[in-house]
Amino acid sequence: MELQFLGTGAGMPSKMRNTSAVVLNLSAEGDGYWLFDCGEATQHQILHTSLKPRKIGKIFITHLHGDHIFGLPGLIGSRSFLGGEEQLDIYGPTGLNEWIKTTLRVTNTHLNYELIVHEIGEGVVFEDADYRVTAKSLQHIIQCLGYRIEQKPLPGKLLITKAKEAGVPNGPLLKQLKSGEDVILEDGRVVASSDVTGEPQEGFIVAILGDTNYCSAAVELAQDTDILVHEATFDIDTGNLAKEYGHSTIGDAARVAQEAGAKTLIANHISARFMPSDVAQLQKQGEAIFPALHIAEDFSRFEWKNGEVIRD
Amino acid sequence: MELQFLGTGAGMPSKMRNTSAVVLNLSAEGDGYWLFDCGEATQHQILHTSLKPRKIGKIFITHLHGDHIFGLPGLIGSRSFLGGEEQLDIYGPTGLNEWIKTTLRVTNTHLNYELIVHEIGEGVVFEDADYRVTAKSLQHIIQCLGYRIEQKPLPGKLLITKAKEAGVPNGPLLKQLKSGEDVILEDGRVVASSDVTGEPQEGFIVAILGDTNYCSAAVELAQDTDILVHEATFDIDTGNLAKEYGHSTIGDAARVAQEAGAKTLIANHISARFMPSDVAQLQKQGEAIFPALHIAEDFSRFEWKNGEVIRD
Ligand SMILES: [Zn+2]
Ligand SMILES: [Zn+2]
Repeated sequence: MELQFLGTGAGMPSKMRNTSAVVLNLSAEGDGYWLFDCGEATQHQILHTSLKPRKIGKIFITHLHGDHIFGLPGLIGSRSFLGGEEQLDIYGPTGLNEWIKTTLRVTNTHLNYELIVHEIGEGVVFEDADYRVTAKSLQHIIQCLGYRIEQKPLPGKLLITKAKEAGVPNGPLLKQLKSGEDVILEDGRVVASSDVTGEPQEGFIVAILGDTNYCSAAVELAQDTDILVHEATFDIDTGNLAKEYGHSTIGDAARVAQEAGAKTLIANHISARFMPSDVAQLQKQGEAIFPALHIAEDFSRFEWKNGEVIRD
Repeated sequence: MELQFLGTGAGMPSKMRNTSAVVLNLSAEGDGYWLFDCGEATQHQILHTSLKPRKIGKIFITHLHGDHIFGLPGLIGSRSFLGGEEQLDIYGPTGLNEWIKTTLRVTNTHLNYELIVHEIGEGVVFEDADYRVTAKSLQHIIQCLGYRIEQKPLPGKLLITKAKEAGVPNGPLLKQLKSGEDVILEDGRVVASSDVTGEPQEGFIVAILGDTNYCSAAVELAQDTDILVHEATFDIDTGNLAKEYGHSTIGDAARVAQEAGAKTLIANHISARFMPSDVAQLQKQGEAIFPALHIAEDFSRFEWKNGEVIRD
């Protein structure tokens, strides 16, 4: 799993940071990409990566401010034009469906794939055999959701020597044992999966939040996460503005990570008032509260592997 | 007057060309900017110029395909955020108002200026003391307009020596004479403006067309223009695709310019299939029919001065 930031700015695009978008890249898991928010020109940012729009299977929208959704219509259309034929599911607050459908109708856009818009509130918004996604309302000036993405435990590795010792022949039985099923051999003996596989591996937990003041819902979503992505529009010195506009300081973000016991914090949604030379100061203010902090830049990538987070 | 191309591509953004947008820069005339079409990331393109979004007074939309309008919501919002307080008029086909108003409502966008959306058809769509804008329907797969912008004749230059000889003192009377008014001197003599000013100067005529097949409406809009901006999505070898999708080849664009007696042709809306190395071939195909041809690139600028067009 890898997190790939396409836009890390706040409110409006600047030369340094585009508006919000981050890809949860599940290619290594065989599950394509999930996109979180889609500011204007997200498809332009993708042109500067190796990402393929048709591999985006799900898009989660935190809230309906333009800097989080104005890239959706273009991306939806280009995904079709670039060969996307598999279903696309978009999740977000009420109003999203009306806007997307009006846009597609007025612009006479025809898609070569099925588009399903799920207007959601709090709770489990998606679950399958491999993942569970839970949403909670944050504290912004309009309804804004945060998402917690939990990968379910992975079956333990097949201990091939043990399986051989138990008399399992090469072939499909090994695959069944690996996926957790017990099997019956030709001579009638039963081999239990748990006897020939290692410990189940823990999946990742990531929380990707929208715009918010410091709030308890953020702490709940971030509980014990491997990675928390939290906005930090302001620094500690401009905390009064953060409060007024429903945003967080780098200190608020660090406090949430610290209280939630997150392993790593990645701060995004950085105001254009901060120049590249100011990032060190933001980092310092945040680190004082929560040391495992990264400030995301556009095109920053963070790989999660064996429980560790590595910034590329 | 200057034409400034912000997006010269077709259908989707590429690394080389953004989707459609061109600025008619009337700063030299004291009239701000008029924007023609507004593809996604037009506001991003503006970040790489010295243009100020708040100086955009009018936006003319040719048609409601996404590659011509998906930059509108972001630009409308940023114009307000960046200090725009003067009225913004947007002109375009039916459906534009519903889309813009739905978008502003769903995203809870509040503007610090008055926004007026004019849904228009053929005819004179704007006229004041200085300009007249006429629209005509072109031939595309959906309703698509072309615009002809005529600057009205400018008062002739004040012939200062002649005015002095006629006994006009320094001061406000000179200004009145310059603007076309006759004046009465202190001694009762009348001085006619026409006696102390040169010939009225001709204004510019520019046609900026949307996506279209070769059509007679294009020729009518382009009649005797100083500059015709015409799409050239395809080259002559891919003319069958042009016909099928309601587009033009570079040859069609050149033919329109030639038949209309335009002085200069600028081709835009170039398909991403053409690499920078293919532009010379497009130029050659077009020049064979109409020599005064420029192929626009993103950020190309063309200044109109004393009846001449200069590519910066
Ligand atoms: Zn935001
Ligand atoms: Zn087009």
